Amino acid sequence: MVTAADFNALLQRLAGQIPAHCILTREEDTRPYECDGLSLYRSLPPVVILPESEEQVIAVVRACKALNIPIVARGAGTGLSGGAMPHPRGVLLGLAKLNRIVSIDPESATAVVEPGVRNLAISEAAAAHGLYYAPDPSSQIACSIGGNIAENSGGVHCLKYGLTVHNVLRVRVVTIDGDIVEFGSEAPDSPGLDLLAAYIGSEGMLGIVTQATVKLIPSPACARVIMASFPSVEAAGDAVANVIAEGIVPAGLEMMDKRATHMVEPFVNAGYDLEAEAILLCESDGTLEEVEDEIRRMNDVFAKAGATRLQVSNSEEERLRFWAGRKNAFPAAGRVSPDYYCMDGTIPRRHLARVLNAIVDMEEEYGLRCANVFHAGDGNLHPLILFDANAPGEIERAEQFGAAILELCVEVGGTVTGEHGVGIEKINQMCVQFSRQELDFFLAFKRGFDPYGLLNPEKVIPTLARCAEYGRMHVHAGELRFPDIPRF
Amino acid sequence: MVTAADFNALLQRLAGQIPAHCILTREEDTRPYECDGLSLYRSLPPVVILPESEEQVIAVVRACKALNIPIVARGAGTGLSGGAMPHPRGVLLGLAKLNRIVSIDPESATAVVEPGVRNLAISEAAAAHGLYYAPDPSSQIACSIGGNIAENSGGVHCLKYGLTVHNVLRVRVVTIDGDIVEFGSEAPDSPGLDLLAAYIGSEGMLGIVTQATVKLIPSPACARVIMASFPSVEAAGDAVANVIAEGIVPAGLEMMDKRATHMVEPFVNAGYDLEAEAILLCESDGTLEEVEDEIRRMNDVFAKAGATRLQVSNSEEERLRFWAGRKNAFPAAGRVSPDYYCMDGTIPRRHLARVLNAIVDMEEEYGLRCANVFHAGDGNLHPLILFDANAPGEIERAEQFGAAILELCVEVGGTVTGEHGVGIEKINQMCVQFSRQELDFFLAFKRGFDPYGLLNPEKVIPTLARCAEYGRMHVHAGELRFPDIPRF
Repeated sequence: MVTAADFNALLQRLAGQIPAHCILTREEDTRPYECDGLSLYRSLPPVVILPESEEQVIAVVRACKALNIPIVARGAGTGLSGGAMPHPRGVLLGLAKLNRIVSIDPESATAVVEPGVRNLAISEAAAAHGLYYAPDPSSQIACSIGGNIAENSGGVHCLKYGLTVHNVLRVRVVTIDGDIVEFGSEAPDSPGLDLLAAYIGSEGMLGIVTQATVKLIPSPACARVIMASFPSVEAAGDAVANVIAEGIVPAGLEMMDKRATHMVEPFVNAGYDLEAEAILLCESDGTLEEVEDEIRRMNDVFAKAGATRLQVSNSEEERLRFWAGRKNAFPAAGRVSPDYYCMDGTIPRRHLARVLNAIVDMEEEYGLRCANVFHAGDGNLHPLILFDANAPGEIERAEQFGAAILELCVEVGGTVTGEHGVGIEKINQMCVQFSRQELDFFLAFKRGFDPYGLLNPEKVIPTLARCAEYGRMHVHAGELRFPDIPRF
Repeated sequence: MVTAADFNALLQRLAGQIPAHCILTREEDTRPYECDGLSLYRSLPPVVILPESEEQVIAVVRACKALNIPIVARGAGTGLSGGAMPHPRGVLLGLAKLNRIVSIDPESATAVVEPGVRNLAISEAAAAHGLYYAPDPSSQIACSIGGNIAENSGGVHCLKYGLTVHNVLRVRVVTIDGDIVEFGSEAPDSPGLDLLAAYIGSEGMLGIVTQATVKLIPSPACARVIMASFPSVEAAGDAVANVIAEGIVPAGLEMMDKRATHMVEPFVNAGYDLEAEAILLCESDGTLEEVEDEIRRMNDVFAKAGATRLQVSNSEEERLRFWAGRKNAFPAAGRVSPDYYCMDGTIPRRHLARVLNAIVDMEEEYGLRCANVFHAGDGNLHPLILFDANAPGEIERAEQFGAAILELCVEVGGTVTGEHGVGIEKINQMCVQFSRQELDFFLAFKRGFDPYGLLNPEKVIPTLARCAEYGRMHVHAGELRFPDIPRF
């Protein structure tokens, strides 16, 4: 148990090593860090430390280890699964000040960056060389590469260009012992065990990333997007399957249902077809010839699949307008509902219609509305459950609705997360997703990197005790009470 | 220490569970298993077991665990780093009989296969649906998917389509405790820690794969290959860099130096330019229009980079002939030299000329010839060191030459393996590649999955003791003596 005396000892120990302005302890300063993008769960951190160098990160980690104080790393705080929610008895380690772009090598098409660098800032810096960093979470203007690495973030272009795990070549990590290790390489394969992939998406449980080498790719000469209308989600789902079956890998392939387009259109004026039960946005990028050829083939597939309207962007401005609706679906939800809860599950594409229909039934069951935006190409659903936190019982119903969606994803052979991570949000569903033996392996792996259980404890991997008590977790007025579960 | 009595106890225990014809103990039966494709190292296994079902795999693993007997898994035995070399006091577990293609799902473009299925057999079975399995090791006619998973195998098409790790979606594994676990999913991301990637390439150290779900992709409508001649390896290297910088991802991009083309041409009659100091083979695949466009662009790049001859395949027959030379480089080496040693390191592409020139210098130093074939697009070198095992000192010089090449790869920022794995061959170079802390993490991870140290022990991850004694490993007449190093 960490006590106030331990925190005093921590601050004393760090006094000579961390500048005073990098240590926040007053409630008015620490309050902004009480949650990440999943504001449903909050916990005020006793202390926030914002190191300005790798040496300072090492100092913090060593001091916390010596005093047995948990550490929760945080990037820009845009995460959607509570991965950066503070530990009530731990240090919140904000990495936003480690924001240098260390180098860009146009010849090998790589960039070396610190974790606090914003996702979009990498592409901005690489633009001079005709290069960019492909993964593009909707929050890319704000989110940091360190957070992207922690959550293995995706984005609308990940169907063609992969998730974060496919675009990071190497990480430099401070271990819980305060050592520096590096995993991954610029080579296609890494010798020994491929621990880089395990780091990416490990949500702060294995170490603190202080530098990453990312892959850059040439900016395409041309990009155009088709907006296709369909009379049913089934027809749109079939059209998605048919495009993939044609051997086309679109740069992006997104679906929005009627509730989502109606929510977004008055806000963005993207020009969406409000008669359609579902629309697809399907992008092609490459050379002029490639794009022309691919757009023609995709249009053919959609026409055959029963599209009722097909429109191809005729300018970069129009292309961005088509995407603006999709990219602003979350803020649009905030406009039509006091609160919304963005879920993130994946399913085999063939079960799309079944799952969307089941969600319609669940709307009745839980008495809440749900709009669906969907990375259709890779089967990643983002149902947006609309609710009012001030209406009695709605938070609980929203949570139950979300849990039911995730468990349905598992039932049809999918998973409880696509690109937002597990964090605190989906930890119970991990009990549904994995067997006891599989969870044991996760815990064994975690222990190998963090034998003291200090790195983002009580997140992501449920203990058996937690799985046993699933259904009885206490959430009250958005403040999560930590049960006294054993540390792993 | 495992004794003869332990093996008797093992055979007794398995008597009712494994058919007698699946257990080999006579030297005439076990001799064929004494090595894999790296015949430089041999060790006769005391017993070979060839299970016919997952239940039998479980029975073997449980019995071995109970008796503390090491297990070395083996696929088709085509591995090139000694990963499947038997343990002198262990069971050699051959998985060739687990060779069912369980299912092919054309809609989701996946196949579920057992580990003994041959790589090419997957594509043959998927061809009816217009699909194929992309990774294509040169041994694909013989090698098994289980072995591909163990070594994270590549092939000439991996530049565009990725290594095994990018094409396997899920594995089903028997753990050392005899439990079944599954990692990975059909979804793009996996919740929790991404242990699938760590399994792939783990060389039999973490568990026994009994089933895998692999990704299939549509067979391209068209493929053509350019054969380009260059007056120097530098010029060819620059041409490779320029193609990549153009934003083109060729389906394959291979380089062979003059020594390699001269070795191969009399054997294969591929039509290679024997005047050129280096040739590139550069393939485009896709629709007719895409291929036409890409071939035109690649030809332009090569012409500007100083190609002295450019020839594009005009028929499928010609395309296969161009590739036949490259794919038969290893057998061709066997034709011109009593023995050859195929190395496998990767380097950042920009250091290609530097490394190839250094290899020329090393030929003098070690008094041996070396031909170079090269997955140029992804920086994966395969120097073929030619030697005569019967000439005094040549084995040792070949090993030292190989080690020097690998250590140079590390020095320029590359790695000691590209696609052949570490096995027993490169275990010393792992000491050069990784720091003590990094090796400690590998060991901790390994322990999490195999606390008893029974799964392919003494391979891949060097102990600190081994790194300390590196340089004093005993190899005598191709028989490796295991020093009494501590088990991890």
